[in-house]
Amino acid sequence: MLFVLKDEEPWNLPADVFKLNPAGELPIFLSDGNVVAGNYAISEYLEELNQEIRLMPEDIKQRAEVRRLIAWFDEKFYREVYRNIVYEKVHKRFAKGLAPDSKILKIGLNNLNFHLEYIDWLIERRNYLGGEELTMADITAAAHLSIIDYLGDVPWEGYRNAKIWYSKMKSRPSFKDILKDNIKGILPAKHYADLDF
Amino acid sequence: MLFVLKDEEPWNLPADVFKLNPAGELPIFLSDGNVVAGNYAISEYLEELNQEIRLMPEDIKQRAEVRRLIAWFDEKFYREVYRNIVYEKVHKRFAKGLAPDSKILKIGLNNLNFHLEYIDWLIERRNYLGGEELTMADITAAAHLSIIDYLGDVPWEGYRNAKIWYSKMKSRPSFKDILKDNIKGILPAKHYADLDF
Repeated sequence: MLFVLKDEEPWNLPADVFKLNPAGELPIFLSDGNVVAGNYAISEYLEELNQEIRLMPEDIKQRAEVRRLIAWFDEKFYREVYRNIVYEKVHKRFAKGLAPDSKILKIGLNNLNFHLEYIDWLIERRNYLGGEELTMADITAAAHLSIIDYLGDVPWEGYRNAKIWYSKMKSRPSFKDILKDNIKGILPAKHYADLDF
Repeated sequence: MLFVLKDEEPWNLPADVFKLNPAGELPIFLSDGNVVAGNYAISEYLEELNQEIRLMPEDIKQRAEVRRLIAWFDEKFYREVYRNIVYEKVHKRFAKGLAPDSKILKIGLNNLNFHLEYIDWLIERRNYLGGEELTMADITAAAHLSIIDYLGDVPWEGYRNAKIWYSKMKSRPSFKDILKDNIKGILPAKHYADLDF
């Protein structure tokens, strides 16, 4: 399956986003005139559609573990870390022309340590976050972390296993495009695209 | 399958919740020594485990539509309505002994109208939110709405189709226990348990 990525700025969405998704949110996935909206619906849809590439284990208990971790990063990490750092540093600047609130930023950076510790703990016990194989849990976690890494805010040095895991993720061909990502007006941290960081 | 519900107060969780779910959050589902944590993992797990009761359509495009709506209520409705009303009126009171912030409450009540309008619009076109059959989308929406209805804050009168849909949901045997729910210290709205409201 080949897809074309169309980037949009979340703080400047075109009106047709609302036509495709009444929630007015990204991501939206279009294929053969079919619209699938939201990361939950999209990731499960692709899993059900494509029998060749599996990002979910076969066993239903292991699937539950992967989904627990997807929710961890999409909800808990998002709320405790991502929103406090990325919203403050990126969205607020481009959407409202405001500087980040240093108190909120500090909370986000502090919370990030607990999440890195948890990744570290998991990777001490497993090859990948959700088990022995790469799953959607790794993709979700790496996607959220990569933007914070772009901003230079991930203290990798204190978390050896987490760093090894992220280095494995970065080396994957599918990660190449993410490492080329660019936020207009914000330069990536020096090590962002380095496979050795 | 028969399960026993063990209630916990979200603002007063016992320590063993953290042992079962490192996120320290509810819901947690226990079966045969297996722990499944979080509503996403639990609902998909039950769907995969139990072939008798289906709360997801067969068709993968329809499944995507149901999942879009689950995310709508768990994320968008939660953020725009539930948190502003239920957190202010219930959690804040029991967790912190504080009165609701009337400004936040007003935002939540105002947002609720848009969501009821959307439910109304969907039910004009479909039997249930996610299609012609009852699905997990209905359960999710009704669960979020029922607590706001308990507080007496749902303006059903302006939304005829939404009211018909919710009345159908209330009449289901599985909803009976929810209608017996009680928040200690807060009386339910008069019509809360009425099937004709």
